[in-house]
Amino acid sequence: MDQSKSAPSERVRVKRAHERGKYDAQSIHAILDATPLAHVGYTIGEQPFVTPTLQWREGDRVYWHGSSASRALKSSEAAEVCLTVTLMDGFVMARSAFHHSVNYRSVMVLGTAEKISDPDEKELRLKNFVEGLFPGRWDMLRPVTGKEIKATTVLSMSVDEASAKIRTGPPIDDEEDYALPIWSGVIPVKSQLLAPEPDPRNLEGLTPPGHVTGITLG
Amino acid sequence: MDQSKSAPSERVRVKRAHERGKYDAQSIHAILDATPLAHVGYTIGEQPFVTPTLQWREGDRVYWHGSSASRALKSSEAAEVCLTVTLMDGFVMARSAFHHSVNYRSVMVLGTAEKISDPDEKELRLKNFVEGLFPGRWDMLRPVTGKEIKATTVLSMSVDEASAKIRTGPPIDDEEDYALPIWSGVIPVKSQLLAPEPDPRNLEGLTPPGHVTGITLG
Repeated sequence: MDQSKSAPSERVRVKRAHERGKYDAQSIHAILDATPLAHVGYTIGEQPFVTPTLQWREGDRVYWHGSSASRALKSSEAAEVCLTVTLMDGFVMARSAFHHSVNYRSVMVLGTAEKISDPDEKELRLKNFVEGLFPGRWDMLRPVTGKEIKATTVLSMSVDEASAKIRTGPPIDDEEDYALPIWSGVIPVKSQLLAPEPDPRNLEGLTPPGHVTGITLG
Repeated sequence: MDQSKSAPSERVRVKRAHERGKYDAQSIHAILDATPLAHVGYTIGEQPFVTPTLQWREGDRVYWHGSSASRALKSSEAAEVCLTVTLMDGFVMARSAFHHSVNYRSVMVLGTAEKISDPDEKELRLKNFVEGLFPGRWDMLRPVTGKEIKATTVLSMSVDEASAKIRTGPPIDDEEDYALPIWSGVIPVKSQLLAPEPDPRNLEGLTPPGHVTGITLG
């Protein structure tokens, strides 16, 4: 079976521009790992809400967290949610308005959000989150307290029911439009990290560790 | 009345870290105008879905579009939706894991998505979208056809029921943790546009117009 062609469920199958759809774990994991920013969809009554948050992946599960008082997390817990991660990679400028597009990588994960209740597991997941972004940072920090773990909710779900959608490359115009003298192409977009800004209250003589100067995104 | 302190509805009121909430049109418009990338939440049955799309604002309304065959658009039309725009501005690195954060600007708009049915208005909105991103481009393009307008759905909603949430600045640590020799600060994140990549099929001698070389984001 060609994994890349088989959707795990009808509801995550990429219908429009289906040639852009991917369902294999490698494609899905690569996008989840490329940026922590996610948008989680949940409902309160009939109303959908979409809240930005940071996600991280461990194996075939995705995690996100926040204050235990968060309405977004309380409404997501044990409920059906949708977690979407998108990287916009470029503006695609065609010879007609209709064929303008964007290059992007996107993953949509559907599932039931499970709350991690064991405090040790919660701490481990949070450690993995911090270490995933900033290797070596966890052990440099003031240790986490039981009260902080209690004040934090960690949610998780399987990435089994997910699809990736990817567009790359130049515009695809109507064949006859290629004869037109219209500049077409791609303006690439990239999330860049700029020079770190030390906290004015840092003790004197501290230099940014490797996990600050070496971080990459995208 | 201080507009910045008064939420238009309870369901968009920023509850956690409420000092980060803004409800005035200026704050909300500025974030919507800073990037076209949005995530729209809608439901199919009980299941929330979150689909990335591009949005644009005209006055006090926000617009988005796509193929008339799009499941996301068909499910959003005349339904309650949530449109969220987020710019991640930086990683905030504190002296404890608990106080790590991100700097960001985010807007959440709730409302009923209305479909633009008049073809002339649809074309006008699409023109405004293209011109908003790339001033002067619309008139350079092969003109849009009636068939293309028909194949495109444009949705819209008021931004009356919206809230912005903004975090800026260095970490806020527990007072006693400032004595610790831990590098803290912000790693700024910025969406950058890279050098345009001309379509290999461009006619010879075309140079990128000002709306390609002059575009900014963020």
